[in-house]
Amino acid sequence: MRELKGINTYSLYSLLTAMDSFIREKYKPAKSEITAHFRVKKSEKLSFRECLDSVARESSIGTWTELATLEKKIAKKLGPKIFGLDEGTGKASIAYPLDLFEKGNLPQFWSGICGNIYGMSDVQAIRLDDVDFPEEYVKSFKGPKYGIEGVRKTLKVKGRPLVGTIVKPKVGLDEKGHAKCAYNAWLGGCDIVKDDENLTSMKFNNFRKRVSLTLKMLEKAEKETGEKKAYMPNVTSETFEMLKRAKYVEECGGTYAMVDIISAGFSALQTLRNEDLDLILHAHRAGHAAFTRNKEHGISMLVLAKLARLAGVDQLHVGAVFGKMEGGESEVKQIVRAITEKGPLKSVFPVASGGLYPAKVPPLMNALGNDIIIQAGGGISGHPQGIIKGAIAMRQAVEGTLKGIPLEEYGLMHKELGIAMQKWGN
Amino acid sequence: MRELKGINTYSLYSLLTAMDSFIREKYKPAKSEITAHFRVKKSEKLSFRECLDSVARESSIGTWTELATLEKKIAKKLGPKIFGLDEGTGKASIAYPLDLFEKGNLPQFWSGICGNIYGMSDVQAIRLDDVDFPEEYVKSFKGPKYGIEGVRKTLKVKGRPLVGTIVKPKVGLDEKGHAKCAYNAWLGGCDIVKDDENLTSMKFNNFRKRVSLTLKMLEKAEKETGEKKAYMPNVTSETFEMLKRAKYVEECGGTYAMVDIISAGFSALQTLRNEDLDLILHAHRAGHAAFTRNKEHGISMLVLAKLARLAGVDQLHVGAVFGKMEGGESEVKQIVRAITEKGPLKSVFPVASGGLYPAKVPPLMNALGNDIIIQAGGGISGHPQGIIKGAIAMRQAVEGTLKGIPLEEYGLMHKELGIAMQKWGN
Repeated sequence: MRELKGINTYSLYSLLTAMDSFIREKYKPAKSEITAHFRVKKSEKLSFRECLDSVARESSIGTWTELATLEKKIAKKLGPKIFGLDEGTGKASIAYPLDLFEKGNLPQFWSGICGNIYGMSDVQAIRLDDVDFPEEYVKSFKGPKYGIEGVRKTLKVKGRPLVGTIVKPKVGLDEKGHAKCAYNAWLGGCDIVKDDENLTSMKFNNFRKRVSLTLKMLEKAEKETGEKKAYMPNVTSETFEMLKRAKYVEECGGTYAMVDIISAGFSALQTLRNEDLDLILHAHRAGHAAFTRNKEHGISMLVLAKLARLAGVDQLHVGAVFGKMEGGESEVKQIVRAITEKGPLKSVFPVASGGLYPAKVPPLMNALGNDIIIQAGGGISGHPQGIIKGAIAMRQAVEGTLKGIPLEEYGLMHKELGIAMQKWGN
Repeated sequence: MRELKGINTYSLYSLLTAMDSFIREKYKPAKSEITAHFRVKKSEKLSFRECLDSVARESSIGTWTELATLEKKIAKKLGPKIFGLDEGTGKASIAYPLDLFEKGNLPQFWSGICGNIYGMSDVQAIRLDDVDFPEEYVKSFKGPKYGIEGVRKTLKVKGRPLVGTIVKPKVGLDEKGHAKCAYNAWLGGCDIVKDDENLTSMKFNNFRKRVSLTLKMLEKAEKETGEKKAYMPNVTSETFEMLKRAKYVEECGGTYAMVDIISAGFSALQTLRNEDLDLILHAHRAGHAAFTRNKEHGISMLVLAKLARLAGVDQLHVGAVFGKMEGGESEVKQIVRAITEKGPLKSVFPVASGGLYPAKVPPLMNALGNDIIIQAGGGISGHPQGIIKGAIAMRQAVEGTLKGIPLEEYGLMHKELGIAMQKWGN
């Protein structure tokens, strides 16, 4: 409660400060604490330190009404600690005792640290940049079932980025058209083909029919190419329906389910993972930019990525690095590091997507390495000779990059790539 | 896919415009369409009209790669229409054919209209202000099981706002302390007592133990006051665990479940509603301000409120009107109108909360009427004589307001209110 801070905060604040502030400038967080790194734009009525106390309070025990003896005890045991203050940048970190959180309950974390603080009048804006979880907390979540290693094993692809595409137009094809489009992409060399984020079960494209038809074409493509292929059907819906759809995919021999993690939400995402189906989970992040894009307010993509790893997705969209927008190199690198670094949970396969085409492959692999999924929509289906050739060109781009041959040169020997390079240049 | 718009958007755009733009200046949306009202801050590289086409495209069929014959047909059948353009304010409306949406699937709506558009480089910022749903779509959702009428029947309260409070400190009390605090609030006159948003099942406060103890105290309070009372335990967690907790509340004779709808997410919220338990659903919106606060970017609280009604919450936090922050009078009034206006679904009980205390009751009731829940945390427990007297004072404030007596005057005859008026003035 008290989402909108009340009239009394200020006067009560003075009382609190006099008696107890959560600021401990030189504090070193204990291994058992969850530490959140904020940037705060202070309100005019309060000092920077007062704002921070307000944020720390609202995201933890919220003791502000009256500091009775009982509450002092609680504050001592469960109170947060604010440290690393830098008024210039607005930065400050808050360490929260682990007992403030219910293990294995991701929505509860969100409600505490990503909750009421965004609506407080005590700050003009507040951004959660990063968060560090203690091992004990991390271990209370399932994490990815497959991770990079498991995905590679399923797809039998070693040592190179996976290549994926999306059926386009995103919504509008019927089941047959959809399956055919996917088939062409596989034939050309795509490892993975995915549904788009707003395609679920439509009047003109039924989920079950689409899945069974597309998986049949997948089998055909596997036989014809001798490669393992994967289809990622979008199961996003109400929890039980989502589970039913995922199980149907499993029954049909599918290996993947794709879910829009922001739209579906963390409760259902955890449920889907907890079912422990034999499906790799691909996480689409549609909608994240509503709260990640404003760099002064909201929640960073980095935090979201860490939570997605806890919840247990195997693949996650992280940005394109060389796309035309946010998700620049340093941010994406940081996200990739966070979801792949060694820890109690398996690593998440980073998906680079958004405005990618063959010429972008060398710098992308140079920045992020080989353990990425390169997903190109327009950069494949926009190939002048169609989607099959587009997929061939993309695989050639990966191949050439791995061989260390400049793509302009590699394109001379590989005509599909050559045509793509001509169209899109650098 | 294509969250971050690619390098080719612009050149392809020209092709699209030449052949087909979604703009129909004078379009009147059909009854069967979903109409979204946006405000767009255009990017530098595109014109206002080009930006709008890009938004409409990305939130619907996404046809941009190649306008083959097939895609033209799809665009004709499923293409959106942009109308009501006003470059000065950035306003424009987009009508989407209903077939672009899966009925009864709220996450799918979110992925489409509240999804990738927020991350597009083709706009600097984009805000979804409002959305209109056709009856056919609305009817595919359950909506509130109880609504205002059902809640009033359960609580046996007619003709006056309900009065509620929150157990404080928000996290830290053990089960016994929690139950006692709730008991005191009921004794003083609160109809409803709720858990706070980050209190679920903690090491020091177990959900089941808390619920059974608090409901026992509720029975005692009902006997002693002769009034019907309600407790709203926070069930927010992974979907199955959430259902288990809600069922436990039902078994214990509870009448409410509270859920953090943003943290839990729409899939699980729909699941909880679909279970059709005999529990009134109270929706807490912790975290909404991460994407509703910036008035230029994100999603309005109004849209969120409409979606919550579709999903089927019975009560929703809407803002305090006289709080110190966003959620000013006109915005909150608009939200209240949207969730209570006659339609195929029951109305949602608006909860006003945030910095409320007795003196704020007359203007609040004047602005929003009697069909509201007045929830005060500090405005009750911060009463100089404690929580029981605080609750008495709040009920007196409601009483005095209904009688049309100025509270300064009513406070002379009712000492608890008098003390509250003295402390908090106006």
